[in-house]
Amino acid sequence: MESNDVLRTAVEAIAPIDETAAEGARQRWASRAKPPGSLGRIEDIAVQVAAITGAVPPSPIARPAIAVFAGDHGVVADGASAWPKEVTALMVGNMAEGKAAINAFAASVRAEVRLVDVGVDADLGAIEGVVAAKVRRGTASIARGPAMTRDEAIAALEIGVDTATDLVRSGADLLAGGEMGIGNTTPSAALVAIFANAEAAAVTGPGAGLPADRLGHKQTIIDAAVERARRLGDPIDILAEVGGLEIAALAGFMIGAAAAKVPVVIDGVIAAAALCAADAIAPGVASRTIAGHRSTEPAATVALDHLKLDPILDLDLRLGEGTGACLAIPIIQAAVNALATMGDLPV
Amino acid sequence: MESNDVLRTAVEAIAPIDETAAEGARQRWASRAKPPGSLGRIEDIAVQVAAITGAVPPSPIARPAIAVFAGDHGVVADGASAWPKEVTALMVGNMAEGKAAINAFAASVRAEVRLVDVGVDADLGAIEGVVAAKVRRGTASIARGPAMTRDEAIAALEIGVDTATDLVRSGADLLAGGEMGIGNTTPSAALVAIFANAEAAAVTGPGAGLPADRLGHKQTIIDAAVERARRLGDPIDILAEVGGLEIAALAGFMIGAAAAKVPVVIDGVIAAAALCAADAIAPGVASRTIAGHRSTEPAATVALDHLKLDPILDLDLRLGEGTGACLAIPIIQAAVNALATMGDLPV
Repeated sequence: MESNDVLRTAVEAIAPIDETAAEGARQRWASRAKPPGSLGRIEDIAVQVAAITGAVPPSPIARPAIAVFAGDHGVVADGASAWPKEVTALMVGNMAEGKAAINAFAASVRAEVRLVDVGVDADLGAIEGVVAAKVRRGTASIARGPAMTRDEAIAALEIGVDTATDLVRSGADLLAGGEMGIGNTTPSAALVAIFANAEAAAVTGPGAGLPADRLGHKQTIIDAAVERARRLGDPIDILAEVGGLEIAALAGFMIGAAAAKVPVVIDGVIAAAALCAADAIAPGVASRTIAGHRSTEPAATVALDHLKLDPILDLDLRLGEGTGACLAIPIIQAAVNALATMGDLPV
Repeated sequence: MESNDVLRTAVEAIAPIDETAAEGARQRWASRAKPPGSLGRIEDIAVQVAAITGAVPPSPIARPAIAVFAGDHGVVADGASAWPKEVTALMVGNMAEGKAAINAFAASVRAEVRLVDVGVDADLGAIEGVVAAKVRRGTASIARGPAMTRDEAIAALEIGVDTATDLVRSGADLLAGGEMGIGNTTPSAALVAIFANAEAAAVTGPGAGLPADRLGHKQTIIDAAVERARRLGDPIDILAEVGGLEIAALAGFMIGAAAAKVPVVIDGVIAAAALCAADAIAPGVASRTIAGHRSTEPAATVALDHLKLDPILDLDLRLGEGTGACLAIPIIQAAVNALATMGDLPV
């Protein structure tokens, strides 16, 4: 028997978005002091926040929080990445010291960063500022077999749910999800291929700098993993077969945010892959999610099209960590603030 | 004799951007803790700020300021706009009360808003929070003859220069320019057609909601104005013939920012048209300018291509007021902050 009460409770708490609130937000926009529709996507963003939170106008977003989940990937030993797996732990240390890109961006937008070790293949016990929630030290290689067991996938999902729940309980009113995990574009591409029903060739990209002559090898790994996972029907089983610990945690984080009716901003290709899984596990999560940025990685666009999400930013980022999500936060805040504080039409 | 010392001094103070600082910023990015190039456009933005300010890394941007210039347009009486000219004064009042979109956005990004009446066709003396700098009450219709005299264009340009100088003197370290002026997409389209050497058909759009069946009329007005102005060689004469008071002030504002070596963010089609004029008056201004947003108005893209600027955002805004520029401010701040505070590569 699975001990998945946290996950089950969250999935069952997810309600359809509030169409009445969305319509109320549209009507409120229509009477603001500007030509109809002249704020373009900004109007859509505020309508989506109204639909997610159920409030018209939505309350100002005062306490954004970013969770960064970290984990390692056995497939790195099979040559899927340009970087050695040790970089995951080094970058987590860098983040804990406030020296990574996500720290700089989060400071700029005044967002809290919560760093969660859900599966780094190193002992991070000594690093202050890292939440210790390791499910296992890295996944097994998806080039050879399942990344993890179903129970491990559920444990990682529940860490994500708990992280979202805890941040919301402590006052966060907008969540964003990021990750750190050398090698994680490979499992992400596999997940996108399965959930969006795409070919391996359409989702394979260079990630964090794989040379062009090694892309064929990466695609072969993804192809084999996808072939195994396509035989599975259950989305948690698929996540366990070809996913990653931080990817599962991110999926759980989105489910937790959706259950709490708090908007969650997704980042690049890893977060988009996690959302594909989250929306398959708990249909409706995608409608409660805002796409922050379009990663240059090809699987990102395949996933976003599948999820019917149009990202706010397109700045050629391909870093992860939550950077693309973080940069979208002030845009979302401005959209909500405009709907709430703009005056009526003067004529 | 022209009393244009303020303008002449500013134009003469504009230096080429600092290529050494740009190269220093690129080298600093190369050693930050991330895969090379993985922050995409964010890296370019910080490099441009380094090139403009001459500092590596650039100092954090702590005090952004937005100037909104307002003016009326005689061409509205000839049917160029969907809105009556009285809306200009009403919207200036709305902005002074803090109820316009630009106020909401500026509050979100913690930017000061300075509102300058450079040519509204109404007595705004009683409105608190509006800088009274009226050159004349609206332009003459460019459908029939020159918008204003050369001296009036210079006076408006100098108000813009002075506004930039004063904001920088009071501590602003990033400027953004916006405008309010019913009818001002018509003179803007004419300016873009002339400076970017485009046909009237390529620059005519619906502005703030002109019905499709009146677009041909608008294009005819633009075509006639462009034909007159093409005979003129001097950019200030062109600005006087087919421009607007708030457009000239915006052009002066960009020249003032460039002279002060402070980055200036431009907004939509009006600001892009003003920059076309500013860069013709003072070559090099465009290289010291950051494009905030790609307006949906066709002349905006023609102007941006001519100026070789790639906007940060593309959110289908078509409002003006400085809204698109304002939303780009936190992205620029994050870019500068990341270059300044990120650690070295851990490996």
